[in-house]
Amino acid sequence: MKNAIDNLIEKIKEKNNPTVIGLDPRYDMIPNCIKNKYGQDLKGVADAIIEFNKDLIDAVYDIIPAVKPQIAFYEMFGVEGIRAFEETCKYAKSKDLVVIADMKRGDIGTTAEAYSNAAIGRTTIGEEFQKIFDVEFVTVNPYLGTDGIKPFVEDCKKYGKGIFVLVKTSNKSSGELQDLETKDGEKIYEKVAKLVNEWGKDLIGENGYSSISAVVGATYPEQLKELREKMPHSYFLIPGYGAQGGKAADIVLGFDENGIRRNSKCIKKLNMCI
Amino acid sequence: MKNAIDNLIEKIKEKNNPTVIGLDPRYDMIPNCIKNKYGQDLKGVADAIIEFNKDLIDAVYDIIPAVKPQIAFYEMFGVEGIRAFEETCKYAKSKDLVVIADMKRGDIGTTAEAYSNAAIGRTTIGEEFQKIFDVEFVTVNPYLGTDGIKPFVEDCKKYGKGIFVLVKTSNKSSGELQDLETKDGEKIYEKVAKLVNEWGKDLIGENGYSSISAVVGATYPEQLKELREKMPHSYFLIPGYGAQGGKAADIVLGFDENGIRRNSKCIKKLNMCI
Repeated sequence: MKNAIDNLIEKIKEKNNPTVIGLDPRYDMIPNCIKNKYGQDLKGVADAIIEFNKDLIDAVYDIIPAVKPQIAFYEMFGVEGIRAFEETCKYAKSKDLVVIADMKRGDIGTTAEAYSNAAIGRTTIGEEFQKIFDVEFVTVNPYLGTDGIKPFVEDCKKYGKGIFVLVKTSNKSSGELQDLETKDGEKIYEKVAKLVNEWGKDLIGENGYSSISAVVGATYPEQLKELREKMPHSYFLIPGYGAQGGKAADIVLGFDENGIRRNSKCIKKLNMCI
Repeated sequence: MKNAIDNLIEKIKEKNNPTVIGLDPRYDMIPNCIKNKYGQDLKGVADAIIEFNKDLIDAVYDIIPAVKPQIAFYEMFGVEGIRAFEETCKYAKSKDLVVIADMKRGDIGTTAEAYSNAAIGRTTIGEEFQKIFDVEFVTVNPYLGTDGIKPFVEDCKKYGKGIFVLVKTSNKSSGELQDLETKDGEKIYEKVAKLVNEWGKDLIGENGYSSISAVVGATYPEQLKELREKMPHSYFLIPGYGAQGGKAADIVLGFDENGIRRNSKCIKKLNMCI
């Protein structure tokens, strides 16, 4: 059966491009020609962000498969910021882009359920339900273990959505916990990789990838290569390319060809990277 | 110098009660006499939640020191839900309660900065700044290591705020990662405890506690006891009491007396528990 990753792969093939554009708006970097139309209050900022994001989406939607808005850069403007986030997701979807909400949510069962409802599921009100952000993918944090992830997995099953679980992140200090070696010789990020394989084993789609997939930073090419081998059914979201220092040669190691042959020389069907 | 924990301790003494009430609204459990006043749409739900929370706060503000709204239960209602979250925090503060925003945020440096701005810091717009949620404390996730925590620590310094870092969570599967033993015999949650001690060492207040403190679940009394010893300068936020199965006898182990004597027999000045 087709899953969320299959839809993403279709879009990547169609555009012949595995790049995801981050939508992490910085108000002070939005051009004045947009900013000057709106007030310098929270509502004005949100309106400026929406216009800027729409312009950006208009400029790129025909060459990229997906966008990744980072909710922190919206939340910092409160209620109005969340409005801008919602509008941005909606507009990107109207342009047939896959939306990956970068929210890195992680909490205990019932709370994870509420987060999942917001991002990829449904919110029930009486007998009715409402879609909230209704994106195709959301990023999640594994620190609380299986019962913090399960509600997301359930919604992935029910609604054909997907998640990217943080396995190895792109930041400098990611190794402080993620690289710690356990008694049996495996590192924490390898333990998480195994959990991700386990969580996703019933959700493998037509292309051989599970909709429960992984975030692996471009800034750690060695781990990227190693994890590519250990997670054959995981699609990789690879942050860190560009401003954070990851280069094309680094991220090649996280790609495979067609989900079957895994070497870095021949890239025909690409895993997604940002 | 007085820090956020000193202010919390003052309120705990004043009310003679270390209990924090969670504000995790479930729409279907709000009484009809409130729900029927409003529409069954997102705005109506948010208004019902606000009224319910205000009633609850009115009923308890004179006997408890603090409230802990869990943002997931607001986010699931989208923009309107976040409005309810903001209003709830504002109202609780107007009643002189300490607000602990349960957000479990964790991301790389610049993104963590944006989250911190929203929760405990300031959001800059041009030459001006805005306070967004402006709560006293926020919960954070340590999986990304130091550079995901530092921006929060900076805001704690600047604005006299505090954070509670997830060390050992209260859910069933928390052990899958948190209890893994590393090569040197220490468990992951102990490694996190050490990091928390390190992050908070310059922010110790008049009562001997750092404003960089810890979440330790009531459902794991053994770890609670052990961590109480290992984190003498950490105030503990202890979830899991009540619905999750933690009992009074379990949480006693997480308390100390006056931050100096640490045994479970004599509790005069209590660490906070929920």
